[in-house]
Amino acid sequence: MTIGIACIGYGYWGPNLVRNFARQMDCQVYVVCDSKPENQIRIHRDWPMVKVVADAMEAIHDPRIDAVLLATPVATHHPLAMAALRAGKHVFVEKPLAGSVAEAEELVAFAASQQRILMVDHTFVYTPAVQKIHELIRTGTMGELYYYDSTRVNLGLFQTDVNVIWDLAVHDFAILKILVPEQPVRILANGVSHFPDTPQGMAQICVEYASTFRAFINVSWMSPVKVRSTLVGGNRRMLLFNDLEPSEKIRIFDTGIKQILGTQESDRFRMDYRMGDIHIPHLPVTEALMNVATVFLDAILHNTTPLTDGQVGLDGAENRPPIPPPFFFNT
Amino acid sequence: MTIGIACIGYGYWGPNLVRNFARQMDCQVYVVCDSKPENQIRIHRDWPMVKVVADAMEAIHDPRIDAVLLATPVATHHPLAMAALRAGKHVFVEKPLAGSVAEAEELVAFAASQQRILMVDHTFVYTPAVQKIHELIRTGTMGELYYYDSTRVNLGLFQTDVNVIWDLAVHDFAILKILVPEQPVRILANGVSHFPDTPQGMAQICVEYASTFRAFINVSWMSPVKVRSTLVGGNRRMLLFNDLEPSEKIRIFDTGIKQILGTQESDRFRMDYRMGDIHIPHLPVTEALMNVATVFLDAILHNTTPLTDGQVGLDGAENRPPIPPPFFFNT
Amino acid sequence: MTIGIACIGYGYWGPNLVRNFARQMDCQVYVVCDSKPENQIRIHRDWPMVKVVADAMEAIHDPRIDAVLLATPVATHHPLAMAALRAGKHVFVEKPLAGSVAEAEELVAFAASQQRILMVDHTFVYTPAVQKIHELIRTGTMGELYYYDSTRVNLGLFQTDVNVIWDLAVHDFAILKILVPEQPVRILANGVSHFPDTPQGMAQICVEYASTFRAFINVSWMSPVKVRSTLVGGNRRMLLFNDLEPSEKIRIFDTGIKQILGTQESDRFRMDYRMGDIHIPHLPVTEALMNVATVFLDAILHNTTPLTDGQVGLDGAENRPPIPPPFFFNT
Amino acid sequence: MTIGIACIGYGYWGPNLVRNFARQMDCQVYVVCDSKPENQIRIHRDWPMVKVVADAMEAIHDPRIDAVLLATPVATHHPLAMAALRAGKHVFVEKPLAGSVAEAEELVAFAASQQRILMVDHTFVYTPAVQKIHELIRTGTMGELYYYDSTRVNLGLFQTDVNVIWDLAVHDFAILKILVPEQPVRILANGVSHFPDTPQGMAQICVEYASTFRAFINVSWMSPVKVRSTLVGGNRRMLLFNDLEPSEKIRIFDTGIKQILGTQESDRFRMDYRMGDIHIPHLPVTEALMNVATVFLDAILHNTTPLTDGQVGLDGAENRPPIPPPFFFNT
Repeated sequence: MTIGIACIGYGYWGPNLVRNFARQMDCQVYVVCDSKPENQIRIHRDWPMVKVVADAMEAIHDPRIDAVLLATPVATHHPLAMAALRAGKHVFVEKPLAGSVAEAEELVAFAASQQRILMVDHTFVYTPAVQKIHELIRTGTMGELYYYDSTRVNLGLFQTDVNVIWDLAVHDFAILKILVPEQPVRILANGVSHFPDTPQGMAQICVEYASTFRAFINVSWMSPVKVRSTLVGGNRRMLLFNDLEPSEKIRIFDTGIKQILGTQESDRFRMDYRMGDIHIPHLPVTEALMNVATVFLDAILHNTTPLTDGQVGLDGAENRPPIPPPFFFNT
Repeated sequence: MTIGIACIGYGYWGPNLVRNFARQMDCQVYVVCDSKPENQIRIHRDWPMVKVVADAMEAIHDPRIDAVLLATPVATHHPLAMAALRAGKHVFVEKPLAGSVAEAEELVAFAASQQRILMVDHTFVYTPAVQKIHELIRTGTMGELYYYDSTRVNLGLFQTDVNVIWDLAVHDFAILKILVPEQPVRILANGVSHFPDTPQGMAQICVEYASTFRAFINVSWMSPVKVRSTLVGGNRRMLLFNDLEPSEKIRIFDTGIKQILGTQESDRFRMDYRMGDIHIPHLPVTEALMNVATVFLDAILHNTTPLTDGQVGLDGAENRPPIPPPFFFNT
Repeated sequence: MTIGIACIGYGYWGPNLVRNFARQMDCQVYVVCDSKPENQIRIHRDWPMVKVVADAMEAIHDPRIDAVLLATPVATHHPLAMAALRAGKHVFVEKPLAGSVAEAEELVAFAASQQRILMVDHTFVYTPAVQKIHELIRTGTMGELYYYDSTRVNLGLFQTDVNVIWDLAVHDFAILKILVPEQPVRILANGVSHFPDTPQGMAQICVEYASTFRAFINVSWMSPVKVRSTLVGGNRRMLLFNDLEPSEKIRIFDTGIKQILGTQESDRFRMDYRMGDIHIPHLPVTEALMNVATVFLDAILHNTTPLTDGQVGLDGAENRPPIPPPFFFNT
Repeated sequence: MTIGIACIGYGYWGPNLVRNFARQMDCQVYVVCDSKPENQIRIHRDWPMVKVVADAMEAIHDPRIDAVLLATPVATHHPLAMAALRAGKHVFVEKPLAGSVAEAEELVAFAASQQRILMVDHTFVYTPAVQKIHELIRTGTMGELYYYDSTRVNLGLFQTDVNVIWDLAVHDFAILKILVPEQPVRILANGVSHFPDTPQGMAQICVEYASTFRAFINVSWMSPVKVRSTLVGGNRRMLLFNDLEPSEKIRIFDTGIKQILGTQESDRFRMDYRMGDIHIPHLPVTEALMNVATVFLDAILHNTTPLTDGQVGLDGAENRPPIPPPFFFNT
């Protein structure tokens, strides 16, 4: 069986989607849609065999099409995804899933009722490094998790419409959603804007959970050095994920902290440290979007739930740091 | 003129004090006092020419003595310093200045009334690196300060009586006290203890000021890697202070962020970035305590106010993070 | 005046040449030539306004053309360059200049007699980092040069036709040619092949000059880590060029070694060391080939000698390490 | 059984020897000898229970003594070691073993004839890092060795009596002696002195063996940065030993290069690369000299041959790079 694919939107992200789906064995990209003439010319040049259309409905209702990829502005996600689901098509949506929680909820419920796959493109989650971390946690190698501590800082670029949390910490929220089974109970954020009429350019975030697990996040557009560094601590292993390293992105420390109960009143507890070897796994160089495409096609073929399904996209919408963020306690 | 010195206490810190004052030109250590016989033997062996006494009052009232160094338990700081001030002696106290704010206030007031120098040994402030940063700020090289962002993490050692803030962030509080002329208006801290009956082992702190200047501090006993890294951002320069670097501790970035006002409604502001050269100053290898001794003796000789005088010690006492810290909003 | 350009060859390197010359103000690419139909289609798609021809002579003799770029196989360099020079055109040749010393000599002599520019594309020499090092030497900032010490090692790729010297050290020879005014008097090389019938995969090279200046070069295809690191030592400054650093490629050390003559027999000489600040200049992010294009056009417009003229290409041909290299003393 | 120890010489190295042997269970330091009164006072202060003597013969002939440690000037090694061996004592000698090959040969032969242990203190070989590398080679983890490639460079200090090879590469010779079972067949060295009447301050060395194994060594007193970095390549693993890393000194790469024979004339060989995980073993923090003491005492107790016995010391003497070194081909 070959899954017939239509991609709607060929601006910034659409070409990446088409390129990665085109390389897959299990599908064929038959139709690409964009309303702008200059983008239609690009489609034609890049993919001479593909049908180019200007009207999304024509793409959705093409009978060869089993699944629709949406790489269009956020406001169109809900109507286009609903139309595709109504036409019996599986849907893949560029993040964020929808412009509001209500829209996202309707999409998730409708996809479930139609038994169609609804997947959101949280690409970062499918990078070989994050996939490896997920595996280390899932298989129990890390043990019970203590914390996630992430630093994402660099110089600029200031956004005018979103603050630094929505620009940088958003990756941490997507990763946490996958790595940590618990739901957060409270998110505390503390930011500062150094210039009039600009969104916060530095922020500190603490994501609290019912357990003692905590996520600490530090983001900034004001740092002279670029850092993309995340510590994950478990009671069996700890790891450092440095996304700027070209080939040694993950260092796994066979290091432990344990509390040993003492036997005397004066010695109620004693902390035991263990320093061990360090292991740097060789990661495949697969493009994340290639993994994304594989997961979506597998979900269609085997009727499985993709890692970043509509529900994850919906949770993301709920956790989405609004601007100005209401949970900022110091505004 | 040679300043006559007595040191009271020859346990852990006392020998360092005596060694560094002994190397100074302007003073002579005449008396060292310790009540424990084994410490008296050590004094004798290390400094055969020095008078060894067991009684602090004998040291304080020795007529050759102009200044008294206190390296004794905190509880004794107030009575011994008061006795020395009453005897007309200058006083140098190992940190913290006193066990309570009331005691510290009394010491500061009394030293002022007696016109004696009262200095607290915040050693970290006198390291060549922090002195250099202070100079870069004082001379305007850094420009107006935006932020101080510090990470101090490592594996262990858990303290049983103080949390990670009092163990590690205390250095940041001492440095901020010197670098930033403003007083904080609010300190927010957020920590977690992963083990029953243990103090917080990870914490995130934000120190707020009336201006937009902010200090962000991240401390942990739970990290598999050791980091001692502080970013300081100003509108003319930014710098990275990495205390683990043996010889390249400070990197100064000729990097800037400026807001340029636009001329149109749609263009209310525009951010301007400048990436420039990086400069790594060669720092002297002087021991910090050597600088401390020089500052104390200079203050006596020239009647100047030492950088870390009693008032600084008093402010430190007020800011001292108690356990459980009342400014923790999530306890 | 607009310089008319023809590019001959549109395989691997040709597209880079056309793209970089097309962005220049002073020239216009009128003609691109390639004999292969598939490359002709690529030219058409990439540059719809450009005339596509299959015959090199047609490109050379087009009356709009002032200068010819050659990105063709080495064997064709000499006949095509001679034809272009005969037609009164300036010539820019991908390295190496020609397939033999005799051919190169003829090209250099003929270009001189015709008063045409003959430039060889030693791209590496035009990277912002090497240009900066050249400037530091030329302006006397480095002082008198002591040494050049380069390490280029990585894992693979083994070449079947050339050894590791010709693969990696060739960049050092091109750089040395520009940085050092002296000609080498002797080159000593020492290599090893670990596998039957394969060229040397590790080698150590020492380039000797009449002065005490020395170049030491260490190259390997057998290293588990990739290193591209060059030290240049002068009597006023020393520098480290690390080509793997994304933005801090050059570190300049204000460090010195001087010999001070003693006054006594027992003290004939004394070495004086000075450790100073480190400076990391911000380098422009210009593509090297953009600089190359600018230099070639400037040479035509102002009748100057390009940094890598035919003579430099000829010297390179003479120094080219043959296989097996005759200066290997241990074969 | 407790081995009775005498140490002769209490200047720079003697105190380290006594301290490390004093901590061992199997021995007792009864006598320490030094002819200088100030050193006798230091012995007394450091080790009040130990007998202090001025005459080496008194130490050697003390009936409680089973083994003699020599930390005296090189010229005295031969006579004192001979006297100790004649008295039936085991002998431990600070490196180098003796002032000449003839002296060293006599010591080795005489110790063998007396069935006494003669061990040389090549401390570097007993560091946890070098011991680990030795283990990785001995156990076959590294596979068959391809190369040893070492860089030891820094700024200064110029020696007046020895060149940079004898100062820095000497460690590589000691390590190679232990790691590589083969004897070198030729050593090529190439150095330069930049200042009149000074020994060579930069050198490149290639140690050749009958197999394809090679050691490449690069040493310099003229580098603005300090590097202590050694690559060891085998056909099963490769490793990087960075002695400046505080806790991650050895990185083991599960990386391979293999030659696969092709089946066609045009494809005589093909190189196969494998990039794998990286492993950083946790090393004990034992002081090297502690290991040295253990090995010497074990050799006495169990009549085993220490890793750095007299024969190794003798080989070291033969390989000792003389000044000016006769194997320098460019003097």
